[in-house]
Amino acid sequence: MGKRPCSGNDGERLFVGVDLGGTTISAGLVNAEGTLLGIASDAVGEDHRPHAIIQRIRALVEVVLRGNSRTLEDLEALGVCTPGLMDSRSGVVQAAANLRGWREVPLVELLAEEFHWEASKVTLENDTNAALLAEAWTGAAAGIKHIVLLTIGTGIGGAIMCDGQLLRGSKGQAGEIGHSILVPDGRTFGGAGVSGIFEGYASCSAVAIRARELMPPDSSLSKLEAVECEDVFKHAAAGDSYATELVQETAKYLALGCINCCRFVDPELILFSGGMAEAGDALLTEVRRQFQKYHWNLEPVRVKLKLASAGRNAGLLGAARAAMLSQR
Amino acid sequence: MGKRPCSGNDGERLFVGVDLGGTTISAGLVNAEGTLLGIASDAVGEDHRPHAIIQRIRALVEVVLRGNSRTLEDLEALGVCTPGLMDSRSGVVQAAANLRGWREVPLVELLAEEFHWEASKVTLENDTNAALLAEAWTGAAAGIKHIVLLTIGTGIGGAIMCDGQLLRGSKGQAGEIGHSILVPDGRTFGGAGVSGIFEGYASCSAVAIRARELMPPDSSLSKLEAVECEDVFKHAAAGDSYATELVQETAKYLALGCINCCRFVDPELILFSGGMAEAGDALLTEVRRQFQKYHWNLEPVRVKLKLASAGRNAGLLGAARAAMLSQR
Repeated sequence: MGKRPCSGNDGERLFVGVDLGGTTISAGLVNAEGTLLGIASDAVGEDHRPHAIIQRIRALVEVVLRGNSRTLEDLEALGVCTPGLMDSRSGVVQAAANLRGWREVPLVELLAEEFHWEASKVTLENDTNAALLAEAWTGAAAGIKHIVLLTIGTGIGGAIMCDGQLLRGSKGQAGEIGHSILVPDGRTFGGAGVSGIFEGYASCSAVAIRARELMPPDSSLSKLEAVECEDVFKHAAAGDSYATELVQETAKYLALGCINCCRFVDPELILFSGGMAEAGDALLTEVRRQFQKYHWNLEPVRVKLKLASAGRNAGLLGAARAAMLSQR
Repeated sequence: MGKRPCSGNDGERLFVGVDLGGTTISAGLVNAEGTLLGIASDAVGEDHRPHAIIQRIRALVEVVLRGNSRTLEDLEALGVCTPGLMDSRSGVVQAAANLRGWREVPLVELLAEEFHWEASKVTLENDTNAALLAEAWTGAAAGIKHIVLLTIGTGIGGAIMCDGQLLRGSKGQAGEIGHSILVPDGRTFGGAGVSGIFEGYASCSAVAIRARELMPPDSSLSKLEAVECEDVFKHAAAGDSYATELVQETAKYLALGCINCCRFVDPELILFSGGMAEAGDALLTEVRRQFQKYHWNLEPVRVKLKLASAGRNAGLLGAARAAMLSQR
């Protein structure tokens, strides 16, 4: 029987998605239906030099292929995602968020060389865009073409899909929603030097910082040694009034940020992921309530607010999807 | 000699663009290079019934064709633009901004019937999108693919082009930048019921309102019977310190709005049009200064801020361009 080049030994189209995170590297084997067939992970380790990272990625790819009785020849393409500033068109990571010394690293070229492939077989995507691709493929946004994803953690990452296509902008910087200005001359937050940005009010880190700043002695939170965002949500659920106020205020800022997403790009669906999304429906209900309150009176609220569903594998699934889309 | 159907009698491709404004209707004959060959205008008049408006449009189209020795048969397509809420895909004006009683008017269908054409020969576009199409065709944004246009007048209209395509969003509402929230729980403005929106701080109307609110008796503006936006700019240029302060504050809010455009959609160029753009370089210089001040430190400012150049004919030129693009 003839074998199609670049596909599994039974003719199945196969892709590897690599999620190159701050502490972990994961590689997943994914088919054209978005089914994750296998996964291998390892710590990033201390040696962040590009050559060392490339070696670790190669080892993980081989592990996941072996575990599924496949070889490198079975792969149609490989996608890699990572946080940071990058040019997905040229395949260059301009500045990695969590990898020391990564400046202008031609990651696609290096990976292609390592595997003895054409560069066109390797795709680079930022991690939030990859997560959105995963959600739109097999996750909470499957079948939907106008989507915003907000990843709410240390900061707020954003990704935008319009008419089924990732919105990139002129320099690949579209969707930096966490850095939009929501309170002119407001609180300082992070290292970008701009006061009053969205993630300074509505990220997990911002909630924790705000909780500590104005802590009243009668709040149950004041008994904790270090207050984290999840504590605020837990204590609010248990009835603490200060924590409840913080949750409501956070939901208000999230709602304002979502309204601005609607005004700029008019999505059908806004997805929440990241640490804060773990607060689940308690958070969503409050964000929806505040959204309604600040929504214009020209029409009823039509955008849907939901939790993302692809979970911790969103990055590698989306990286595989990016690789698949690049082969069209 | 054979004659191509749907083109001028010398084979030139010809389009009519109609700008259906609040007080004036204009029709322009435009060729495929974006040259305006002729224009005819008339007052909208008191009778806003769709049938009456359609008749006026037909009369203007015939006037402009006759003036150029052309007939309806010479036209490849017709585009019409108007302010308001509309679905350009279905050709229905949901709510016109300035035409009484216009609710769910199937403008494309009505025009096609009037001219005995297929509906595919008629295109509907909102006026800000049309203006952006004109700028990208032959105006200040020619050759640029990632553009935001801000029309600063009574409110702030917005239009976004990404990768050469108008960004429409899931319900045709993308680019409603004037309604994005810039100051949570800030000043009320307009009829949409949302406090703190961008156009409540940076539109011409907002400048005039703010000027009157806090007028100190020693300002030269206090001598005027009714202060309008252009007075504020004139008196600032003449050295009045209150007017100068107002101009600086307006420029600051415009800069913040422009930064948010960059964070959401990352344009290469932001264009200013509408009444406030008449303040010209005096305004732009101050907006650029404030933009620099509030810009993140991750990279130097790369977006360009410029005045739109298509002027009062932007709407009909862009409507003709929309018609032309629809025929591809």
